[in-house]
Amino acid sequence: MKYIQSTGNQSVKNWKKLQTKKGRSRQNKYLLEGWHLVNEAIKANKNILEIMATTTVFEQTSTQNLWPEEIERFEISDEVAHQLSATPSPQGVFATVSLDDELKISPTSATGAWLFLDTIQDPGNVGTMVRTADAAGFSGVVLSQGSVDMYQPKLVRSMQGSQFHIQLVEGDLREWTAAFKKNHFPVFGSELNEQARRYDQVGRHEDFALVMGNEGNGLSQEMLSETSMNLYIPLTGQAESLNVAIAAGILMFKLRA
Amino acid sequence: MKYIQSTGNQSVKNWKKLQTKKGRSRQNKYLLEGWHLVNEAIKANKNILEIMATTTVFEQTSTQNLWPEEIERFEISDEVAHQLSATPSPQGVFATVSLDDELKISPTSATGAWLFLDTIQDPGNVGTMVRTADAAGFSGVVLSQGSVDMYQPKLVRSMQGSQFHIQLVEGDLREWTAAFKKNHFPVFGSELNEQARRYDQVGRHEDFALVMGNEGNGLSQEMLSETSMNLYIPLTGQAESLNVAIAAGILMFKLRA
Repeated sequence: MKYIQSTGNQSVKNWKKLQTKKGRSRQNKYLLEGWHLVNEAIKANKNILEIMATTTVFEQTSTQNLWPEEIERFEISDEVAHQLSATPSPQGVFATVSLDDELKISPTSATGAWLFLDTIQDPGNVGTMVRTADAAGFSGVVLSQGSVDMYQPKLVRSMQGSQFHIQLVEGDLREWTAAFKKNHFPVFGSELNEQARRYDQVGRHEDFALVMGNEGNGLSQEMLSETSMNLYIPLTGQAESLNVAIAAGILMFKLRA
Repeated sequence: MKYIQSTGNQSVKNWKKLQTKKGRSRQNKYLLEGWHLVNEAIKANKNILEIMATTTVFEQTSTQNLWPEEIERFEISDEVAHQLSATPSPQGVFATVSLDDELKISPTSATGAWLFLDTIQDPGNVGTMVRTADAAGFSGVVLSQGSVDMYQPKLVRSMQGSQFHIQLVEGDLREWTAAFKKNHFPVFGSELNEQARRYDQVGRHEDFALVMGNEGNGLSQEMLSETSMNLYIPLTGQAESLNVAIAAGILMFKLRA
């Protein structure tokens, strides 16, 4: 096992670069931080390339026994852990996961409940929606082109490992919408418009998609006209709108759970 | 009107200090940023002490005509605006609001729907829950001692002005819970426990409280034993839990809206 003390080490520099989209796409992997995510990745049998952990972590032998032997291990100094970490008090355990084996499911073969995210920008919102979709028993989430990159560090933190439970794909939402409609699966849009159907007048569904739009602008007119039906959540107070992740949570649990 | 060009100016330093709890409590005011929040504060007839805006903003005379004349105005340089702003591209309009006239409602006189937040730490979560409570027609939100400070800048941003629509108070949740129960208003706890009542088996309520617990630990055993009934949201997927703001949104819209 290699011990890395200095933050100037080339491996450390490469891991740091995984915080950027360019770095992830060049190295074709992304970074996980913390016990929960690393364990979830192992449980899900993901293609883990490297595990990096501090001396303190390696001394807890019970935990490293759970790590598959074939994964390359690096012992890192606390200084390196701080360098790689996004939090002020890192747990001292990291892993890199290959982006190679990411499932490339086709829109025509998808079944179950799906969440389509149309150009959503905030990584915390996207991550929380993926986690909520997982909790509500959804099959997957499709991010449109022009959305935040799906392995952005803050997004990965907010997902809390849900990317290992459900399918997470980038795709063309028009293509996905067309495929679902061809399969006679309803595609529900969401809008702040009392002309749309009240969300609580729609029952539980098996195979369908729910489309959520951009934080500032909502769903585009183009998407709204391609959906099978548009839903709205009546707001009885004075707030003009709901946070997109909250609206998605209310709709997902109504339609599915 | 005073023009402030330098970030070294004492007024600028004082406004900057409003980013900290100590600064807010010493100066007894908090800072708003952006058109939406400043306009909402004016619409709600809040005690606005100062408006600070860039030269560009002041040149848009139509907007400043909407600002009550008695409010002290400062023209600030773009540099000062950047100094005060929490965003990379500030809109160049700020205000300070007095904390003096904050409503001190007593637990025994509160009616309608209330959200009790027990030691919740993340300002984004608290702000989003206040905004959702507003959207769902709640009367107010009580933050327990030990929660994040309610005029913390990120919290103020996430509330999107909902503090001007509903009541926002800091209080002792045991006292509030006792007062509601004495008034025969149910107090619903929330827990991840199938022993609790399924949330979708509970109907709409008029006067009640919903208690949400800390992100990591959930509601304390002590609070859970003091509530009238505890609700849980069945999770059908593999995610272990929901984000607290998502769970609160689902419960609030089920109980109230």
